[in-house]
Amino acid sequence: MKLLFINGVNLNMNGVRERDIYGSETLGEINSRIAIHFKTDECEFFQSNIEGEICNKLHSADCDGIILNAGAYSHYSYAIRDAIAAIKIPVVEVHMSNILAREEFRRTSVLSEVCKGVICGFGADGYILAGESFKL
Amino acid sequence: MKLLFINGVNLNMNGVRERDIYGSETLGEINSRIAIHFKTDECEFFQSNIEGEICNKLHSADCDGIILNAGAYSHYSYAIRDAIAAIKIPVVEVHMSNILAREEFRRTSVLSEVCKGVICGFGADGYILAGESFKL
Amino acid sequence: MKLLFINGVNLNMNGVRERDIYGSETLGEINSRIAIHFKTDECEFFQSNIEGEICNKLHSADCDGIILNAGAYSHYSYAIRDAIAAIKIPVVEVHMSNILAREEFRRTSVLSEVCKGVICGFGADGYILAGESFKL
Amino acid sequence: MKLLFINGVNLNMNGVRERDIYGSETLGEINSRIAIHFKTDECEFFQSNIEGEICNKLHSADCDGIILNAGAYSHYSYAIRDAIAAIKIPVVEVHMSNILAREEFRRTSVLSEVCKGVICGFGADGYILAGESFKL
Amino acid sequence: MKLLFINGVNLNMNGVRERDIYGSETLGEINSRIAIHFKTDECEFFQSNIEGEICNKLHSADCDGIILNAGAYSHYSYAIRDAIAAIKIPVVEVHMSNILAREEFRRTSVLSEVCKGVICGFGADGYILAGESFKL
Amino acid sequence: MKLLFINGVNLNMNGVRERDIYGSETLGEINSRIAIHFKTDECEFFQSNIEGEICNKLHSADCDGIILNAGAYSHYSYAIRDAIAAIKIPVVEVHMSNILAREEFRRTSVLSEVCKGVICGFGADGYILAGESFKL
Amino acid sequence: MKLLFINGVNLNMNGVRERDIYGSETLGEINSRIAIHFKTDECEFFQSNIEGEICNKLHSADCDGIILNAGAYSHYSYAIRDAIAAIKIPVVEVHMSNILAREEFRRTSVLSEVCKGVICGFGADGYILAGESFKL
Amino acid sequence: MKLLFINGVNLNMNGVRERDIYGSETLGEINSRIAIHFKTDECEFFQSNIEGEICNKLHSADCDGIILNAGAYSHYSYAIRDAIAAIKIPVVEVHMSNILAREEFRRTSVLSEVCKGVICGFGADGYILAGESFKL
Amino acid sequence: MKLLFINGVNLNMNGVRERDIYGSETLGEINSRIAIHFKTDECEFFQSNIEGEICNKLHSADCDGIILNAGAYSHYSYAIRDAIAAIKIPVVEVHMSNILAREEFRRTSVLSEVCKGVICGFGADGYILAGESFKL
Amino acid sequence: MKLLFINGVNLNMNGVRERDIYGSETLGEINSRIAIHFKTDECEFFQSNIEGEICNKLHSADCDGIILNAGAYSHYSYAIRDAIAAIKIPVVEVHMSNILAREEFRRTSVLSEVCKGVICGFGADGYILAGESFKL
Amino acid sequence: MKLLFINGVNLNMNGVRERDIYGSETLGEINSRIAIHFKTDECEFFQSNIEGEICNKLHSADCDGIILNAGAYSHYSYAIRDAIAAIKIPVVEVHMSNILAREEFRRTSVLSEVCKGVICGFGADGYILAGESFKL
Amino acid sequence: MKLLFINGVNLNMNGVRERDIYGSETLGEINSRIAIHFKTDECEFFQSNIEGEICNKLHSADCDGIILNAGAYSHYSYAIRDAIAAIKIPVVEVHMSNILAREEFRRTSVLSEVCKGVICGFGADGYILAGESFKL
Repeated sequence: MKLLFINGVNLNMNGVRERDIYGSETLGEINSRIAIHFKTDECEFFQSNIEGEICNKLHSADCDGIILNAGAYSHYSYAIRDAIAAIKIPVVEVHMSNILAREEFRRTSVLSEVCKGVICGFGADGYILAGESFKL
Repeated sequence: MKLLFINGVNLNMNGVRERDIYGSETLGEINSRIAIHFKTDECEFFQSNIEGEICNKLHSADCDGIILNAGAYSHYSYAIRDAIAAIKIPVVEVHMSNILAREEFRRTSVLSEVCKGVICGFGADGYILAGESFKL
Repeated sequence: MKLLFINGVNLNMNGVRERDIYGSETLGEINSRIAIHFKTDECEFFQSNIEGEICNKLHSADCDGIILNAGAYSHYSYAIRDAIAAIKIPVVEVHMSNILAREEFRRTSVLSEVCKGVICGFGADGYILAGESFKL
Repeated sequence: MKLLFINGVNLNMNGVRERDIYGSETLGEINSRIAIHFKTDECEFFQSNIEGEICNKLHSADCDGIILNAGAYSHYSYAIRDAIAAIKIPVVEVHMSNILAREEFRRTSVLSEVCKGVICGFGADGYILAGESFKL
Repeated sequence: MKLLFINGVNLNMNGVRERDIYGSETLGEINSRIAIHFKTDECEFFQSNIEGEICNKLHSADCDGIILNAGAYSHYSYAIRDAIAAIKIPVVEVHMSNILAREEFRRTSVLSEVCKGVICGFGADGYILAGESFKL
Repeated sequence: MKLLFINGVNLNMNGVRERDIYGSETLGEINSRIAIHFKTDECEFFQSNIEGEICNKLHSADCDGIILNAGAYSHYSYAIRDAIAAIKIPVVEVHMSNILAREEFRRTSVLSEVCKGVICGFGADGYILAGESFKL
Repeated sequence: MKLLFINGVNLNMNGVRERDIYGSETLGEINSRIAIHFKTDECEFFQSNIEGEICNKLHSADCDGIILNAGAYSHYSYAIRDAIAAIKIPVVEVHMSNILAREEFRRTSVLSEVCKGVICGFGADGYILAGESFKL
Repeated sequence: MKLLFINGVNLNMNGVRERDIYGSETLGEINSRIAIHFKTDECEFFQSNIEGEICNKLHSADCDGIILNAGAYSHYSYAIRDAIAAIKIPVVEVHMSNILAREEFRRTSVLSEVCKGVICGFGADGYILAGESFKL
Repeated sequence: MKLLFINGVNLNMNGVRERDIYGSETLGEINSRIAIHFKTDECEFFQSNIEGEICNKLHSADCDGIILNAGAYSHYSYAIRDAIAAIKIPVVEVHMSNILAREEFRRTSVLSEVCKGVICGFGADGYILAGESFKL
Repeated sequence: MKLLFINGVNLNMNGVRERDIYGSETLGEINSRIAIHFKTDECEFFQSNIEGEICNKLHSADCDGIILNAGAYSHYSYAIRDAIAAIKIPVVEVHMSNILAREEFRRTSVLSEVCKGVICGFGADGYILAGESFKL
Repeated sequence: MKLLFINGVNLNMNGVRERDIYGSETLGEINSRIAIHFKTDECEFFQSNIEGEICNKLHSADCDGIILNAGAYSHYSYAIRDAIAAIKIPVVEVHMSNILAREEFRRTSVLSEVCKGVICGFGADGYILAGESFKL
Repeated sequence: MKLLFINGVNLNMNGVRERDIYGSETLGEINSRIAIHFKTDECEFFQSNIEGEICNKLHSADCDGIILNAGAYSHYSYAIRDAIAAIKIPVVEVHMSNILAREEFRRTSVLSEVCKGVICGFGADGYILAGESFKL
């Protein structure tokens, strides 16, 4: 089984920015932990701060399941939404913080409607739970 | 580790009602599957259609983590919300369907704000992912 | 043909409360009049002030048609809504007063969307018209 | 007892348009069935696609009760609303489909507030139930 | 100076309908009073319940000023609004009741924006004040 | 007959400010014209930029009718609204410009609901029409 | 191929009213130009200011495609909307001005949802483009 | 004088839950303090987490005044609202915290409209002030 | 203990205005009654119709507790709100009528958020209950 | 005459994604068809998934008319809107599906206000109609 | 160059009230600092808690530029807004705190629309920056 | 002191686009003027039309203060908002026009909440004032 983990805007700043919310692990450390939990060759990792490049990556994805944390784009990127709808691979939406317990604008994700499921509030563990969801 | 699985209103009808949305497993079958995945004596199961009884159960809960699918009460029961806020045990909110991709009224859960995290869209597997979240 | 008449919250106060709105017949008197209009053994009557018990009754209903006046629960009980959606027996929603001509909050029923039809404004006669609807 | 059945805009297309919603009976056939259910000389029938002509008919109505299905005008015609309020004869509002379970704009009727009662969701049978309501 | 007094929907019912709101004068009596206040040959009177005919009348108007009480059409007829905007003769909007102190839907007139001025709350006297406004 | 003309905030700037909207007459000139139209001893004039002083004036008014142009206070002063409601003398609301054809915030007057009538769009002539309304 | 061009309320005033918005061609001149562009016997023209007559025309239409500019009725006539939905002939909605760049109320057309397509902003040329759309 | 103190959902958790908001007194201790302030036999105490049972208690109340803190049900229970409206005994609404200074959803009480008065923000003292209000 | 009772706009009209809502006691009589209930030298009284003067009084207040009925200013005066927030003395908000059961605009007080508590619906007794709240 | 056809986000997936909505032609095939309809050297084609690159292309456009289908960016990209406003070349907005008959969020285009006209619902033919509009 | 610095409601409490938000400088100290930064005879200072007096000051202002911090009046005083619009001297709006990052009601200023520019978030330095803006 | 001036989307078009709003200086000329006002080696300049690149620049910024004019991205880019929140360097938001006096959509900036302050309406001078704010 092949899993693609896509991280969107500002997630490259993890471990640096607002640590009380996002934890102190860097994205590299998180990805390493994921790669160990699953098998390294099961996992592909991608990060971009550019909305259109995330669309490009979704278009060209070649895997069994996608785990997507689009960061702030989740709240308004109908472009990414349509990119998800345009492909056949199931996508699970992940947020490290419990976005439903934060500022008003973070409580809406325009992506959820076209995702298979949503997991939020478990920090970096959420990526692993999302990956596991493809194995149950 | 002790896990309490609480199912709210109409979830006793699972396997009978709207199977295309909720699947064909009965709640009994789901609970059995959960008990096997974890250990039987790690799991306690509770179901009620009465809002106030769910509050009562939350008040008297004695465990390490609660997995709660409150059914339709999720969308308006500030009573259950306050019952969650009144206790110290962490609660994970589960929905079998991806409520964020359904009718407008189902897209809001008044419980999320006081839960540790939210998992939805994975059918009955969501209970298992939620239980696993306490073990990572 | 078997008809089940379910009355929800505060309807046990009929004939006592706000008579200018709800009339002076008690619920017992109304039910007697219904039983006479149809045949007694065609009719089953149920009343509860507890939302979850109304769900329970709907789950276990065994009849050809249900006439439901959920009282104030009509305006916010997605629990009862889902209970109606969970069963196959058709439900007709009745309100004694013309709820569409009263306070703002009474003008919305969250149940209507899953009911076969709605009858309101005819006082206790509405129950009879609703029952008749199953016979046309 | 004299009953006036008024049908508004597009109801002359019944039996032709969207049959899955409105059934396959033509308005003529429906009116015949109504005339048989009651007595022919008890019933007067009127149909117009022109809002102002429906107002004119309401102004000049000479009967004991009016059964009104204003079609799409129900959703915005304050003109018809005021025409109902301008006369003393009670009006019962009828809709063939359960408008409360359809598109958003159909869920509001500006007429309901000045009608005696509302009946919807029973197809053409709704006219008969409405007529019966004047006889209980 | 030539004045055209246009009355819209349901205003032919004046003196008959809701007298506590609209007074007991019939439209004929009001028009007579207006014709006496000004000069008879200064005044033209028109009434119709049909929105499109009011537009037609506005299109073909030949006078120095128009006094328009469109009745309920005031609240939603963008057709009449555009007909006013399409002509060069100034139009004064009149309402007999103080629409700003009544039901919510009556508090908005879509016509006001294209009228020269608005006079409401003075009963039938409002027509005279509006006529006078062209003479000051 | 005694008439009190109250002008509110910024109306002392008339003839100076935004002349294309409010005309080039000063408030003094307007008041002179009013005093000539009616009789001088029929008219009392008051202007203040302070909301509470307008309330004070209304409380102590001793006349047969009040003509009030509260200026921008019209749009939010529930204080003036309550002052009008607290007295028995009828109040006619006047606006020089057609406020219903201007910016959104100007289209609502919180005073209208407790006034006898409203006249707007006739420039300074509106004061005269309002005064005339007490004489018809 | 038979095309029916329907023009609604106030469009008979074209060339007369607000020329900066709607151009200086009269409706007759526009229709002549259309008849020349296509073939005269391919084109039928209809104009009415009365909402219900536009419904009547739609009900009785006998052609391959309808080009409809309903004027101001576009913004609120659910009656015309339902008339379009009641027939099988495809309808293309046309507006001469770019209604999406004008006043708020003009930005919504309740007809669009049941039309095949929408063309706006091209002045009278829009009718020709709409007619061409049936030929591609 | 007989006073009935009704406490709703989660108030049995007082002294345990969120002490910074609700204080450290248990409900038992609060009730004792109330009973001492007034006379023990003047006071009746009732608590339930079940909405319908609160309605039942209101229906069967036999006293001169009711002091009601419905907890979270205050924000959405039209059932309790109607139960209050159904009885003749005056009800005073109490909230320990100043609900108007907390989360958005807590700022609305659907009960207030049918209560005699509202007291909030005084902690457990609010019950005593409410009781005193019946004695002034 | 020193208590300051501040009454805002139009409250000087008490006993004169709308007696069915505000009672027939004048403000002088109410204040006398309060002064007797507490001790005269414990009480200071202030009334003004001018928003800014109420702010001034709050700024210069020298007492243990303030009882404030700001009248209509309660609904929009962020100025008074900030004046309350600017001082350290606790303020209790009082309304004679149950504002939560009246017109929409009266249901919101912008002051509540910065007050210690709110008491409404008890007529002039509310001032006494508010004063008592400082003594419990 | 030089025409520039710009396609935005996800339109490179045409013919692959949701064929029931967008048809089975690939973007390459559509562009070929357009190039044949007009002349090849009249047409320039550009596609990008990156919002800022679409702005860049608009800034540097050198042609007589632009035909723009911005895809999902149409619904929220004020950046593209301002880029259109920044240039002098007229832009026609095209959507293949009738966006006004689809999900709520698709019914608003923030670009329309600065475009010359809008054409939607004609599939790939819309590009041709838009191109033709520059030639009429 | 002559600059007028106007401070509105509660700003006289600066240095006393909520120091974490507004700093510990008194208004006197701030004004001294401003007078030193510019030249003393370039600066005039005015403060009032009364809305109408701020309007009066604006009407009678005699200077090259006005720096206005209206305090809480910024959020609702259309009176001050109109006073600004009534004069020709440019006004720069200043807020010490970043009002766009505070409570909802503080995020809207009804004054901004008629001011030349807005500066907020720089504490007392904002007055100096605003003054400098007239010199660039 | 090191200052970084970031300009976002379409600002490279300055001096070309809508000159009545944005002035006739090109961005190059503005930056030159800024570099002269401060010292050249104090200033770094960056411009991009791509949202993600602006995030990248913010992430890697190495300076004492950032002056950001994000152009249209200000109105919806939660991505840039989070990028600002992710770094420790203070950011001042600048807009050349007074966005609070323009179209509705321009009146909201999603960035303001995480910026130190906001300056708008001073044209290109705003950059200088913003730079100065770091020096006071």
